[in-house]
Amino acid sequence: MHPVLFYGVPQGCSFGSIVALEWLGHPYQLCRIEMLEQPWPADYARINPLMKTPALLLENGTALSESTAILLHLAARGLDRQLGFAQGTPQFDRLNQLLGYLTTDFFSAFSPLWAVYEMPDADEASRALLRQMGRDEVATALAHIEALLADGRQWLLGGTQRTVADAYFVGLARWAEYHRLFDLAQAYPRLARYLAALRADPAVQFAQAIERGEHPAGAGHFQGHVTLAALRERLPG
Amino acid sequence: MHPVLFYGVPQGCSFGSIVALEWLGHPYQLCRIEMLEQPWPADYARINPLMKTPALLLENGTALSESTAILLHLAARGLDRQLGFAQGTPQFDRLNQLLGYLTTDFFSAFSPLWAVYEMPDADEASRALLRQMGRDEVATALAHIEALLADGRQWLLGGTQRTVADAYFVGLARWAEYHRLFDLAQAYPRLARYLAALRADPAVQFAQAIERGEHPAGAGHFQGHVTLAALRERLPG
Ligand SMILES: N[C@@H](CCC(=O)N[C@@H](CS)C(=O)NCC(=O)O)C(=O)O
Ligand SMILES: N[C@@H](CCC(=O)N[C@@H](CS)C(=O)NCC(=O)O)C(=O)O
Repeated sequence: MHPVLFYGVPQGCSFGSIVALEWLGHPYQLCRIEMLEQPWPADYARINPLMKTPALLLENGTALSESTAILLHLAARGLDRQLGFAQGTPQFDRLNQLLGYLTTDFFSAFSPLWAVYEMPDADEASRALLRQMGRDEVATALAHIEALLADGRQWLLGGTQRTVADAYFVGLARWAEYHRLFDLAQAYPRLARYLAALRADPAVQFAQAIERGEHPAGAGHFQGHVTLAALRERLPG
Repeated sequence: MHPVLFYGVPQGCSFGSIVALEWLGHPYQLCRIEMLEQPWPADYARINPLMKTPALLLENGTALSESTAILLHLAARGLDRQLGFAQGTPQFDRLNQLLGYLTTDFFSAFSPLWAVYEMPDADEASRALLRQMGRDEVATALAHIEALLADGRQWLLGGTQRTVADAYFVGLARWAEYHRLFDLAQAYPRLARYLAALRADPAVQFAQAIERGEHPAGAGHFQGHVTLAALRERLPG
């Protein structure tokens, strides 16, 4: 059996793991989780008791959660493609630093904005406060990425090769557009250019089509969707 | 020159990096950042433009930020002590998953509680909302750790050997006590027992003494404090 990635829609941060799987180029399957249909299937707790996506069911029947862990797992399999770097090298440190930043401060900059959706009963002052907190934190986060992309840098880590960090970033960056906070091209021109280049990538277009529920072929390694029910026998205890 | 860890007080998440350095047992120095004395020395931006701790200045003069990256760097140096595991192994994945969880969802469960401190002008309804959000998220996070520690598990990752994840965890766990949210021993007995054992560890006691401003010897690898000013020549451009 091939690895199965559990990805969440809509607007899931699992997007980047789909892109990374396409870039890796090993056979894999996908399992879709409609995040707004609550509660999620109870069996999903055997994949990730935290009930979050992404998670990656491995060939040996164990499930790996946390974007950092999934991306570093795929990176380790893709050292020859420079999706990531060998442990103990300076680039290994740089990639971990970038993934660390993106999964923590960059990711959570958006938390106050999502929190507004989850509290329809909150008074307007509370909602305004959360929106302002989110806006400030996202502005700081985007400015940090804009600064990283100085000197004509093509990928987040520099160098000529995209890494799993670029895959992850493209999934989160769209949240800035979703919340309509900024005119990206105007406020963060390098970031806007970098995103446009990433979005022309076939793997990113593949992941977008998957999210829309289409049936793209991808680079040829995607082996189709599988349901949680069909996976039952493979699930960890 | 030895590596220098920049750690923040009070209540810094850098605590775990100090513990990990002690466990690693290679020579290192420390540089203290008083986080409440704003603004921080401008030079610190050359260590970490995000103006956060921890950061680790390496022998080659580059600075590494993000707890995940620092801990995985120390783990890679400490494979023989099982502070971490070789890339490509199942335990490498498990450690990354745990660090991923602790640095993201576990860490940010406390964010609403800290946010209350940073907005003295917010109205009481907003403050109550943030406190309730924080309390709920922290309860979920502590319950997750309590579940991990089932079956007499001694360390977060299982096995007989503590890892950098245990070092990081002990630094964050005290936030639950700081905010006086729960009676830990009553609500999360396994977690309380595990924490008590960790706190008896000489490296944890060393880090506590460092934070208090004392002059502990540690296991003998700590080479003393150094100031940011004294480091000026070693700082990255
Ligand atoms: N720390 C996790 C966070 C994963 C996460 O928050 N996933 C979101 C989608 S972006 C999710 O599954 N949310 C569902 C929910 O919270 O109900 C990671 O880095 O992978
Ligand atoms: N993503 C970073 C977060 C580091 C962080 O938030 N550090 C806090 C201390 S726990 C800090 O330096 N805060 C100072 C500030 O925000 O002004 C990591 O995992 O290391």
